[in-house]
Amino acid sequence: MKNIQSYISENKERFLNELIELLKIPSISADSAYKNDVLKTAEAIKISLEKVGCDTVEICKTDGYPIVYGEKTIDKNLPTILVYGHYDVQPPDPLELWTSPPFEPVIKKTDSHPDGAIYARGACDDKGQMYMHVKAMEFMTTTNQLPCNVKFMIEGEEEVGSANLSNFVKNNQEKLKNDVILISDTGMIANDVPSITTGLRGLSYVQVEVTGPNRDLHSGLYGGAVANPINILTKMIASLHDENNHITIPGFYDKVEELSKEERAEMAKAPFNLENYKKALDIDAVYGEEGYTTNERNSIRPTLDVNGIWGGYTGEGAKTVIASKAYAKISMRLVPHQDWEDITNLFKKHFESIAPKGVKVKVTPHHGGQGYVTPIDSIGYKAASKAYQDTFGKTPIPQRSGGSIPIVSLFEQELKSKTILMGFGLDSDAIHSPNEHFGVWNYLKGIETIPLFYKYFTELSK
Amino acid sequence: MKNIQSYISENKERFLNELIELLKIPSISADSAYKNDVLKTAEAIKISLEKVGCDTVEICKTDGYPIVYGEKTIDKNLPTILVYGHYDVQPPDPLELWTSPPFEPVIKKTDSHPDGAIYARGACDDKGQMYMHVKAMEFMTTTNQLPCNVKFMIEGEEEVGSANLSNFVKNNQEKLKNDVILISDTGMIANDVPSITTGLRGLSYVQVEVTGPNRDLHSGLYGGAVANPINILTKMIASLHDENNHITIPGFYDKVEELSKEERAEMAKAPFNLENYKKALDIDAVYGEEGYTTNERNSIRPTLDVNGIWGGYTGEGAKTVIASKAYAKISMRLVPHQDWEDITNLFKKHFESIAPKGVKVKVTPHHGGQGYVTPIDSIGYKAASKAYQDTFGKTPIPQRSGGSIPIVSLFEQELKSKTILMGFGLDSDAIHSPNEHFGVWNYLKGIETIPLFYKYFTELSK
Repeated sequence: MKNIQSYISENKERFLNELIELLKIPSISADSAYKNDVLKTAEAIKISLEKVGCDTVEICKTDGYPIVYGEKTIDKNLPTILVYGHYDVQPPDPLELWTSPPFEPVIKKTDSHPDGAIYARGACDDKGQMYMHVKAMEFMTTTNQLPCNVKFMIEGEEEVGSANLSNFVKNNQEKLKNDVILISDTGMIANDVPSITTGLRGLSYVQVEVTGPNRDLHSGLYGGAVANPINILTKMIASLHDENNHITIPGFYDKVEELSKEERAEMAKAPFNLENYKKALDIDAVYGEEGYTTNERNSIRPTLDVNGIWGGYTGEGAKTVIASKAYAKISMRLVPHQDWEDITNLFKKHFESIAPKGVKVKVTPHHGGQGYVTPIDSIGYKAASKAYQDTFGKTPIPQRSGGSIPIVSLFEQELKSKTILMGFGLDSDAIHSPNEHFGVWNYLKGIETIPLFYKYFTELSK
Repeated sequence: MKNIQSYISENKERFLNELIELLKIPSISADSAYKNDVLKTAEAIKISLEKVGCDTVEICKTDGYPIVYGEKTIDKNLPTILVYGHYDVQPPDPLELWTSPPFEPVIKKTDSHPDGAIYARGACDDKGQMYMHVKAMEFMTTTNQLPCNVKFMIEGEEEVGSANLSNFVKNNQEKLKNDVILISDTGMIANDVPSITTGLRGLSYVQVEVTGPNRDLHSGLYGGAVANPINILTKMIASLHDENNHITIPGFYDKVEELSKEERAEMAKAPFNLENYKKALDIDAVYGEEGYTTNERNSIRPTLDVNGIWGGYTGEGAKTVIASKAYAKISMRLVPHQDWEDITNLFKKHFESIAPKGVKVKVTPHHGGQGYVTPIDSIGYKAASKAYQDTFGKTPIPQRSGGSIPIVSLFEQELKSKTILMGFGLDSDAIHSPNEHFGVWNYLKGIETIPLFYKYFTELSK
């Protein structure tokens, strides 16, 4: 496409500043205290889509946070690309571990980002990657090079399960009709090793509550004589993995697809250095399911992790108490063919069944989504691959991600179209963690690569 | 003793109001935010001791909170009773479970307290029981019936391990010289079943910290591939008890005294109704060490309880994170002959040894104390027993308590005198829990019984 590099270098500062303004709004969907900020962010997205030439832009109400929808149709006979992204972000805590405030973006140089990276919650996941598409659109409309029709669907509840997006999609199939869905909400292997995500894990997220005595008790007067909900909770959670770190929930693995030797050999080709991996995390050993490599454990295998646990006295000093209740938030990453609702039910049934006498157990399903796999012989994948070749000078590697974008499998089911996951972030960008950041080089490279996807997808669709 | 009942009924309202004023000060020693309130409480105790006729009262500085010391010597040839108590209280949380604010005392009637009970943190443990001694002293001095010498030692760090009291005792053996130590910081079986505590459990309190990766991680990208500190912590804690709820720490039981069939039979005579016990706690079953009854589990057997646990995301909604760190506060109740420092070392060694590769474990000893047993043929015990007979009309039952007053065994070691534990609280008074309270009847009954102990102890000492 003509002049894309020059256009980017001329507008680089503005592209960065616009994103920085967006990152200043704490759009934390998990915490209702930030409701107004989430809504304010939706407004900001609407305005930005109008500015880059969408014909119609609307803020679509849902039972939760609104969905920003925009479209530009140049010719009904040309293909239509549906861009999905989200404007909400993860909670930033623990705040004390941030080297700069999560909602006061700053650009700092790092080893992986010598040109600098924008530090802020949402910089990579997903405000930065979503905004690449807005700026790519700006380039194509400004230079009259938009080769096809475009639809944008930017939601505000991805970090809390996209509960209302699914209804929106089901009720707007005609409006959302498209030939391919394009999402940048994943990562790539390295700046010099481009990759396209071809698989996502599903998710089941639950909260558990163990109740023992009806009040907190003195641990001296009652210690040893009644079930301590925290001790019991640790026993119950510990029992969910066996000595080989297999998950012990009956039926959990029934539908898990076992990859062939060949597929695993293919996966093993992706560059990976275990020593660097351990060094980056400051751990003396990796840990996981017996019989699988690190890259397999976090992509083609399901997992069960406690994301939070609390109970009893957690303040300063000591309190000799037996708590009445103990809680945990537990999530399971699932692989294709594992149905998240089935797994949630299996978990609930099993967890309740292992509760000893003397306690009551409550399992509250939180949210979830299905896994996803995309073929590498589709027009969409080929178009993406050619685009990367142009801008990175290398053929991207197909890669299964361990993460989840629950909505992707629903898109395929409801809209009958495939999703292409063009992610430009790095694992080291610390999404969901303190000091999340997004490389300036990656941000601009995304803006440069996306229009080429439009070009090749349109050409290959002829 | 003359006129004690009439004196109490004439001054009942004032006795209650003085205690209520004391309970309004939130003297939480575990939380440094309340430092000024703890110090203010020491001042109040000093003034109250001066008012009831102590010759000298001083606030003795320590490296922590001060110790209030007061004494009245009437005749060097008469015995000296050393009264110990504490003016600090447990943290009140969880606040939402209190039916009235913990530091705004109110009197409410209950089934076990038809004459009403004072609801406030510290009402029973230990401000209320400590203040009985101050008012008993008032009666004896005002009516010229003090039969012996008295010393008061009221500390402000009992709820956080009495670290500085031990030094104070070691450095002031002459000043604290006494013939018997009298403490009201325990309970009795029921208002119509008076009992004297003859045994206390020791305590070892530690905090553990499990560190995995050097930052919080996205549970999708890393889930299954690295050790999750919370999952590991639950496994480690769960492994501290076997299937019979025996503690698995090597050497933990080595010095535990096994009671004879006869002693256990004697214990079993104490009135206990398992159904009422379960009903009061709203549990469908008790839970504990195989082969022992409920009353044995919480008195003659050592225990290991998690008092608090925390890690990861515990806020509203969901966060798919693998925490970098997980924490727990763990306390062990010990029986006589188990040395708390030995046990703390055994725990530390064992807990560190069971940490899998991929995590770092830190064990921080918090505080502790030795268990204690007192004979029932001592002058002190006999004097207490006679006092109860006069005021309750029944011989009190000797009872082992599951609680700990770490300082008691140190008193014996340093001051070479026995401690008599005259407790007037009930198990149902919810000490260390929300809605702690102390029966008005029990408070006044304590004030009535204590002077009789002085009388009989002096007579029996002749």
